[in-house]
Amino acid sequence: TKKYNITLLPGDGIGPEVISVAKNVLKLAGSLEGLEFAFQEMPMGGSALDLVGVPLPEETLSAAKQSDAVLLGAIGGYKWDKNEKHLKPETGLLQLREGLKVFANLRPATVLPQLVDSSTLKKEVAEGVDLMVVRELTGGIYFGKPRGFGTNENGEEIGFNTEVYAAYEIDRIARVAFETARKRHGKLCSVDKANVLEASMFWRKRVMAIASEYPDVELSHMYVDNAAMQLVRDPKQFDTIVTNNIFGDILSDEASMITGSIGMLPSASLGASGPGLFEPIHGSAPDIAGQDKANPLATILSAAMLLKYGLGEENAANRIEKAVLDTLNKGLRTGDIYSAGSKLVGCQEMGEEVLKSV
Amino acid sequence: TKKYNITLLPGDGIGPEVISVAKNVLKLAGSLEGLEFAFQEMPMGGSALDLVGVPLPEETLSAAKQSDAVLLGAIGGYKWDKNEKHLKPETGLLQLREGLKVFANLRPATVLPQLVDSSTLKKEVAEGVDLMVVRELTGGIYFGKPRGFGTNENGEEIGFNTEVYAAYEIDRIARVAFETARKRHGKLCSVDKANVLEASMFWRKRVMAIASEYPDVELSHMYVDNAAMQLVRDPKQFDTIVTNNIFGDILSDEASMITGSIGMLPSASLGASGPGLFEPIHGSAPDIAGQDKANPLATILSAAMLLKYGLGEENAANRIEKAVLDTLNKGLRTGDIYSAGSKLVGCQEMGEEVLKSV
Ligand SMILES: CC(C)[C@H](C(=O)O)[C@@H](O)C(=O)O
Ligand SMILES: CC(C)[C@H](C(=O)O)[C@@H](O)C(=O)O
Repeated sequence: TKKYNITLLPGDGIGPEVISVAKNVLKLAGSLEGLEFAFQEMPMGGSALDLVGVPLPEETLSAAKQSDAVLLGAIGGYKWDKNEKHLKPETGLLQLREGLKVFANLRPATVLPQLVDSSTLKKEVAEGVDLMVVRELTGGIYFGKPRGFGTNENGEEIGFNTEVYAAYEIDRIARVAFETARKRHGKLCSVDKANVLEASMFWRKRVMAIASEYPDVELSHMYVDNAAMQLVRDPKQFDTIVTNNIFGDILSDEASMITGSIGMLPSASLGASGPGLFEPIHGSAPDIAGQDKANPLATILSAAMLLKYGLGEENAANRIEKAVLDTLNKGLRTGDIYSAGSKLVGCQEMGEEVLKSV
Repeated sequence: TKKYNITLLPGDGIGPEVISVAKNVLKLAGSLEGLEFAFQEMPMGGSALDLVGVPLPEETLSAAKQSDAVLLGAIGGYKWDKNEKHLKPETGLLQLREGLKVFANLRPATVLPQLVDSSTLKKEVAEGVDLMVVRELTGGIYFGKPRGFGTNENGEEIGFNTEVYAAYEIDRIARVAFETARKRHGKLCSVDKANVLEASMFWRKRVMAIASEYPDVELSHMYVDNAAMQLVRDPKQFDTIVTNNIFGDILSDEASMITGSIGMLPSASLGASGPGLFEPIHGSAPDIAGQDKANPLATILSAAMLLKYGLGEENAANRIEKAVLDTLNKGLRTGDIYSAGSKLVGCQEMGEEVLKSV
């Protein structure tokens, strides 16, 4: 049996519920494939703020760094919304991404045939959507310096940030994106605002340079405003999208809502080496926390991504993905994806049903 | 009779076709209300590049500045896509906005009952959508300095831009947005990324300060990634949205596509004083240019915004809006909004039909 150390970061709101369910699924799928997991739960986000006064305790980051992969629930909540920047749960998440150097964020947006009716898009527009957003995660305006508050030459108060990309940052995310597109349908669309921003012109130039290493992948470019429209007009035109940190934040959320099942969507954040970070793309949903109403499938599918992208354990990953589909095929639905004729279940029961099919 | 000087900037692609139609509508609606227009056509965008080598000739800007309002068709095209930045048609547009100091861009996104089927959203989600995006247009990352290319402290090549807002820039766009919301349904949603960006924290702080002047308007705040989702999930929740230049670029295009009739949507760009700039939000559509296929209604409705917001001539504006609705009610449609059972017409014929109803 192979052994892996997994750091669990339940976080806030519905985080602990979905992590506890996903942990059991991960454990079972692994053991059926001869894998053994040692889990270590660490505080992060608002719960870490309440416990020790910082959103990412040093012990949490060093445990994460020493493990083979990190599974995160969700962070944030009304309680900490007005905190100063360095005491926001979100700041802990940014520190974790930076600390783990996970520069590549993979966010699939897939419309499952079972859930096509959950989309607000017409059936013929939504059905068959299967795209992947590759978002740069540790650079750009999220981390660029200088940043802060000050006064301009007229003595006016200002707030400012810097959007900046170095060649190596673009090159490495472009390579991840080309590799991803190659394993999918061979089409990569790079999204930028190169008609206005120098940072985007440079982005486009580097992406075009890296393209020569991947002659088999069809590369196109699109402005971000047009991409935001095209995702609504005809999301099926996209295979793989690569974009910067802030555009990726916006477009991946838009893409996930287009599927209508944001409670279903996992994500993977990967670095050049070291442990990856895996998390559902939904938030901490404080309004339904502790009520056994959360949809655990996004976290369960994040565990599948952990196995596949983090540990290279495809067989165990496939077990989980198949179990999720089987459970949906049985007609089981949490509230967020419920429609007439299916069976409404809670977070726990959904998890138990998935376990039966693993 | 009152006299107004109008600068017409036909621009590129379908620009000249839609401007010529809208000009006739503007003329007739005005004359029926005792208004007389002197029109001056000036080159801008790609056609100005071809003619005199710059995207915004000095004569064009000074004619625009001296007029009472500016009506623009559309700019850009494949031909100039690879131009250097200072020779891009888009750069001419940014110079025009800056030169006219039109800091407030109003972009309505309305789903007309006649066109609800054109939306890719389900009927029950799309019908009744009526929102207004108030986008800051002369600040933020579009104009912020420093910007450009260089090397970082490790000697790596970089491209960079600055997102920066001064208090007065936020205050004035916030006031326009609160005034707009007050005339609409009294709800304003300010969109930012204040959980990550200092420029957004400052934005939110100033918007909250200005809110005290408008106790009758209900103010909320939303992160930009969530806003991109909510526009797809339930666009009817929005009345008026205010946001910065780049987020406004993305969200207003997304919102307009949600209506399904981007060929129908006008926009107004206004400054503190001086002429406003009015233009359809669609692009120059080079693929259908010169084929009498363009939908002129967005430009015709931009002429209505010109009358209403630019000249304060509500009666003439209402004539145009009513004429457009009458024409749609007769079942006339250009190709972009065509559906079975309606009558397909070209740009010219659509214009003539609107003229009949003015
Ligand atoms: C919580 C926030 C800092 C974060 C981001 O903006 O990256 C979130 O929106 C996400 O996309 O993971
Ligand atoms: C053409 C481009 C520079 C422009 C912008 O980004 O502002 C356009 O997308 C718009 O929204 O008017």
